[in-house]
Amino acid sequence: MAGSIFGDMFRVSTWGESHGPALGCVIDGCPAGLELSEEDIQPYMDRRKPGKSKLETARAEADKVEILSGVFEGKTTGTPISMIIRNASQHSSDYDELKDVYRPGHADMTFDAKYGFRDYRGGGRSSGRETAARVAAGAVAMKILKEMGIDVSAYTASIGNIKIEKNNDMLERLSNPVAMPDKIAASEVFKFMDECRAKLDSAGGTAECLIKGVPAGLGEPVFDKLDALLGHAMMSIGAVKAVEIGDGINVTSSYGSENNDEMHMENGHIAFGSNHAGGMLGGISNGNDIFMRVHFKPTPSIFSEQKTVNKKGEDVNLAIKGRHDPVIVPRAVVVVECMAALVITDLLLKNMSSRMDHIHKIYDNL
Amino acid sequence: MAGSIFGDMFRVSTWGESHGPALGCVIDGCPAGLELSEEDIQPYMDRRKPGKSKLETARAEADKVEILSGVFEGKTTGTPISMIIRNASQHSSDYDELKDVYRPGHADMTFDAKYGFRDYRGGGRSSGRETAARVAAGAVAMKILKEMGIDVSAYTASIGNIKIEKNNDMLERLSNPVAMPDKIAASEVFKFMDECRAKLDSAGGTAECLIKGVPAGLGEPVFDKLDALLGHAMMSIGAVKAVEIGDGINVTSSYGSENNDEMHMENGHIAFGSNHAGGMLGGISNGNDIFMRVHFKPTPSIFSEQKTVNKKGEDVNLAIKGRHDPVIVPRAVVVVECMAALVITDLLLKNMSSRMDHIHKIYDNL
Amino acid sequence: MAGSIFGDMFRVSTWGESHGPALGCVIDGCPAGLELSEEDIQPYMDRRKPGKSKLETARAEADKVEILSGVFEGKTTGTPISMIIRNASQHSSDYDELKDVYRPGHADMTFDAKYGFRDYRGGGRSSGRETAARVAAGAVAMKILKEMGIDVSAYTASIGNIKIEKNNDMLERLSNPVAMPDKIAASEVFKFMDECRAKLDSAGGTAECLIKGVPAGLGEPVFDKLDALLGHAMMSIGAVKAVEIGDGINVTSSYGSENNDEMHMENGHIAFGSNHAGGMLGGISNGNDIFMRVHFKPTPSIFSEQKTVNKKGEDVNLAIKGRHDPVIVPRAVVVVECMAALVITDLLLKNMSSRMDHIHKIYDNL
Amino acid sequence: MAGSIFGDMFRVSTWGESHGPALGCVIDGCPAGLELSEEDIQPYMDRRKPGKSKLETARAEADKVEILSGVFEGKTTGTPISMIIRNASQHSSDYDELKDVYRPGHADMTFDAKYGFRDYRGGGRSSGRETAARVAAGAVAMKILKEMGIDVSAYTASIGNIKIEKNNDMLERLSNPVAMPDKIAASEVFKFMDECRAKLDSAGGTAECLIKGVPAGLGEPVFDKLDALLGHAMMSIGAVKAVEIGDGINVTSSYGSENNDEMHMENGHIAFGSNHAGGMLGGISNGNDIFMRVHFKPTPSIFSEQKTVNKKGEDVNLAIKGRHDPVIVPRAVVVVECMAALVITDLLLKNMSSRMDHIHKIYDNL
Repeated sequence: MAGSIFGDMFRVSTWGESHGPALGCVIDGCPAGLELSEEDIQPYMDRRKPGKSKLETARAEADKVEILSGVFEGKTTGTPISMIIRNASQHSSDYDELKDVYRPGHADMTFDAKYGFRDYRGGGRSSGRETAARVAAGAVAMKILKEMGIDVSAYTASIGNIKIEKNNDMLERLSNPVAMPDKIAASEVFKFMDECRAKLDSAGGTAECLIKGVPAGLGEPVFDKLDALLGHAMMSIGAVKAVEIGDGINVTSSYGSENNDEMHMENGHIAFGSNHAGGMLGGISNGNDIFMRVHFKPTPSIFSEQKTVNKKGEDVNLAIKGRHDPVIVPRAVVVVECMAALVITDLLLKNMSSRMDHIHKIYDNL
Repeated sequence: MAGSIFGDMFRVSTWGESHGPALGCVIDGCPAGLELSEEDIQPYMDRRKPGKSKLETARAEADKVEILSGVFEGKTTGTPISMIIRNASQHSSDYDELKDVYRPGHADMTFDAKYGFRDYRGGGRSSGRETAARVAAGAVAMKILKEMGIDVSAYTASIGNIKIEKNNDMLERLSNPVAMPDKIAASEVFKFMDECRAKLDSAGGTAECLIKGVPAGLGEPVFDKLDALLGHAMMSIGAVKAVEIGDGINVTSSYGSENNDEMHMENGHIAFGSNHAGGMLGGISNGNDIFMRVHFKPTPSIFSEQKTVNKKGEDVNLAIKGRHDPVIVPRAVVVVECMAALVITDLLLKNMSSRMDHIHKIYDNL
Repeated sequence: MAGSIFGDMFRVSTWGESHGPALGCVIDGCPAGLELSEEDIQPYMDRRKPGKSKLETARAEADKVEILSGVFEGKTTGTPISMIIRNASQHSSDYDELKDVYRPGHADMTFDAKYGFRDYRGGGRSSGRETAARVAAGAVAMKILKEMGIDVSAYTASIGNIKIEKNNDMLERLSNPVAMPDKIAASEVFKFMDECRAKLDSAGGTAECLIKGVPAGLGEPVFDKLDALLGHAMMSIGAVKAVEIGDGINVTSSYGSENNDEMHMENGHIAFGSNHAGGMLGGISNGNDIFMRVHFKPTPSIFSEQKTVNKKGEDVNLAIKGRHDPVIVPRAVVVVECMAALVITDLLLKNMSSRMDHIHKIYDNL
Repeated sequence: MAGSIFGDMFRVSTWGESHGPALGCVIDGCPAGLELSEEDIQPYMDRRKPGKSKLETARAEADKVEILSGVFEGKTTGTPISMIIRNASQHSSDYDELKDVYRPGHADMTFDAKYGFRDYRGGGRSSGRETAARVAAGAVAMKILKEMGIDVSAYTASIGNIKIEKNNDMLERLSNPVAMPDKIAASEVFKFMDECRAKLDSAGGTAECLIKGVPAGLGEPVFDKLDALLGHAMMSIGAVKAVEIGDGINVTSSYGSENNDEMHMENGHIAFGSNHAGGMLGGISNGNDIFMRVHFKPTPSIFSEQKTVNKKGEDVNLAIKGRHDPVIVPRAVVVVECMAALVITDLLLKNMSSRMDHIHKIYDNL
């Protein structure tokens, strides 16, 4: 209830601070019989881990994940899966001078307002490092989805004013350090970020996420619509300031006759002539590809001087030091994927009991 | 768990279909001792109810709300508050020909995919009429917020390509039928909608929501950030395709040095020089105004002919008849307000146990 | 979260006070496609309703249940089922003199301590009348269980010192007003209760509940064991002071060699030579009959004089007037059944996603 | 939702198997500002840990608890507290021959029925060792309760047919290995258990729990009554087959005039002349001591031969080997305490928002 648990049937509890001994998660509700090992999870950890290029913080973390429970003889047992990732490269002393100062754009001031004090080392619980635990959990969800024929792929769509021209090269996104499926745009980003760093500044950007293979019927009407749960999941990622489903904001200046996705039959199945809706209607998946856009603000840690206040209530000037990502999107792309995977997996499990005929299918010939 | 319950401590359960005998809600967790009567709720119902202008469906519903429990001698008792709104103007026969046809842009196809069949009369549970119950619940939350000095105001910011120029006339928004705080823009909308209707088409638009007086400290780190819960709440409203917090999408092309809100001391309190963040940092309110933008798609019910399929799996053409709002935003504005009020109220209650000193304040001198 | 919602996947929200206009419930998560009408529910309401004999309060309530949503063309739609039961026979003036007095054994004093004031008419929300809404919800669960071949039967096992000798005549329990499956014991109870009433006193007793046909595998390890959820459900019924599963308290003086239920194969299935465990092992059903005992205190409303205090903090004497059940068990038997049905139904739905092969069964050939 | 999470506001997630590398828990919702270190928790771990006498399994575990997050500079930060306890003394090979055999009275058969297979080493997740994680979490709750002046004490009240004569020596219960507050009864138990072991058998028994200092007003009406949550918590402990509140089963043969606790004023506060109710009325604490009895079955692991079946569906005979507690109650006493502490703490936090005046107390002069 204090906000570190996500999901209803596939329920993930995360813990850990930036400069504590470790971070981790517990998954309660993973179905039994899924083949699972650390090897399934590590590739996702590696995509998120820092230090892969000069666009990322220099903090060196191997981010090795270790499974402590819930897996036996290579398969999930249905009981809680606990995973731990040790922190290795804490430079806590970097933060001594931030002990009493509120960094603009960070949660320093709000954590103090809420809790009376805070773990100031590297942002404590509010650090982006917290997402390592989400990625570990999401990688397990991703394994389930793969087994059900569902693919979740996110990529960087823009950084600053540089936008991708094409979005269909999913391998390319894994091979360049800005996670763009467009090599040319990626190289422009490198130049832009060089300028940005030279100005001691940081940049924002957009991730897009495409989910293929989701059967029609996922999502719960009214409050737990598929859109609502995806919106919740994405906006729970630090630095996200906007989420769009399908055509997103553009729908506001579209006409109904343009925006509706017409249907027709194709090989005995319902097909859509377009996908303005982004794969869902009335909050329920319609079998079309799910598509969304997630918008990130510039990294708030910048090296140029800013006006702010300290805990004693004094006006002060602050130039942040330390190790920071000048843009957060490339490393956040895998977090977007993993959060989307958690949403889809949870809905997949919840939808099982939506119909009496499903219930008969499970129990009739036990 | 099937999606019709919202909130954790201030928990709202809604029920009802467009053409059933009634709709309603149950609030479990409203604090005892709040003065409450139907008179507090009805003004919100009246803002949402249809038929106030030619921009709205001609369906005539008084939308009188009746409190059935949880209030005694004019005050809430702490036990569940059940409210009912009777449906009065069902023209179910309007829908006979939609029984087996899937309207583009509607949930007909997805409800059938999920549940095997559906209440096809007026969209059943997927109708916008469902939001009447949310408004009743939200009005109770609004009463609590008012008592705590918190004000929630939403208004129409754009319809089609027509945008408001000013947003500070909150009384004007209550007096024109498009809920715009800008009389001139409102009159342009009337002309635009006339054209739209003449083309048998519909339009989308944007609502904005401003929340003043929220103390710093609301919102739970990680998954239940204030942003995440607002995003969830807004995207749970039918037809919403995008949500922006603060500067929203514009942050992606901003620099950190521009986007960070600098702080300074003002009369002993922390003040911000700007509000790009929309009133929250790290998912927790910072005492600044909360601001968000909610984007609605055009009403999917249009009178021009569309290609679609029926339940038997045949291609058919469909021109929708019946009574529909040609644009949904003006009536949705109060739903935005009410959903925001539910989020803030729930977080207000949850935050009470965030600190040991709060707990001592309540129990020490019982 | 304020305690009037029960269940996770089959989630019931109840509302209403003893002397308000109505009581009711909302079920969120009932699977679609269940045939359901008021006729399925009324028989359970009739077993609970008062005034069937002189052992019960003279308050005359038809307890007619009305379905307001979630059922279309005779079948559940998967959306919330709202049910309402109107109060007809409120003698609120009976309670005027109880306005400021705390009745011993009742929740008057504790409601005031918790909420600052209370609806004093007939106990308000703490009245046994609240269980009418549980029975309406439980009857829907019972319909699902019947379709799955599961039978839930509760009966009165003792009143005061009078215990049943036999417990296998389930029809008899429906035909005598004390709900005993033993005609001879029932007639002794009538005599005992006459004496009890003559002494202006009340009595307690025990209900037993037998559940047949539950497949092995229901119940979640650790905190949500089948035993734990049944214990929770039973102890949530007012006046229950103890719950036993299987051999219950007797296990404490038994030896392991006596108490273990040995297993053997019978027609290709695992069978048990005994049922000391009451149908569950490690919190999970084992396929054996589920058996429990639920113990009720004497009705606290008695006509003889008692010492107590009033809201002003004065010592006073009180002789209660009004209409009360001199023993609560016979009418509570159907509440026990219905609460058990809610637990089993919820676990049946939750268990569907416990294994990957279940998930494949539902989604593989969509 | 898969049963390894407990509580709503003070929410505990546990994980780990008997023979995995470690067990642990995550607490989400612990208020900030509580002084906390491993030293607060270890004494509870030590009371539960095995091998303190010949009445306990010879498995040697130090059960050292390690805090991995949520505590900074000696105080809780309000963010999740993760704790880990490493398994040190796994003799997994002891269990090789149990791989395919279902031990009577154990969860072997039901785990296989539910999940298709199981971690058979030492019972896996169904082992009593799971409770180590509960004790770690409960010890944190206990620290909060102590700060609020609430004391929770449990002790062994009976083993086999030997019952304690006095229950007021709480120090004695900490110094003898059967956790009895009665030295004489304790010495009789040693003799009884010698006989029991000689017969290759095991015994059951009863724990009692007394909670002092709970303010009136805790517990939520209807489904989440204080009694219901305590019943849930106690029955979630493996081997518990019955729970009694206050006079428990004895109320069934009591009269209302005997069983009601009369009230009078004492020094300006309401006092009770007796405590048949065990400290709660209508599911809400009344300020009186909370009292309950928890009944445990004999340890199912016995060395004498039993009839059972194996996974292949064959009848087999089984004499269990390995290391087991011949009676479980003495080590379970601290688990009873800790589960009770979790319930009271969660209700304490939830009750904070029960009244508008509480809400004003927290927010009015922020």
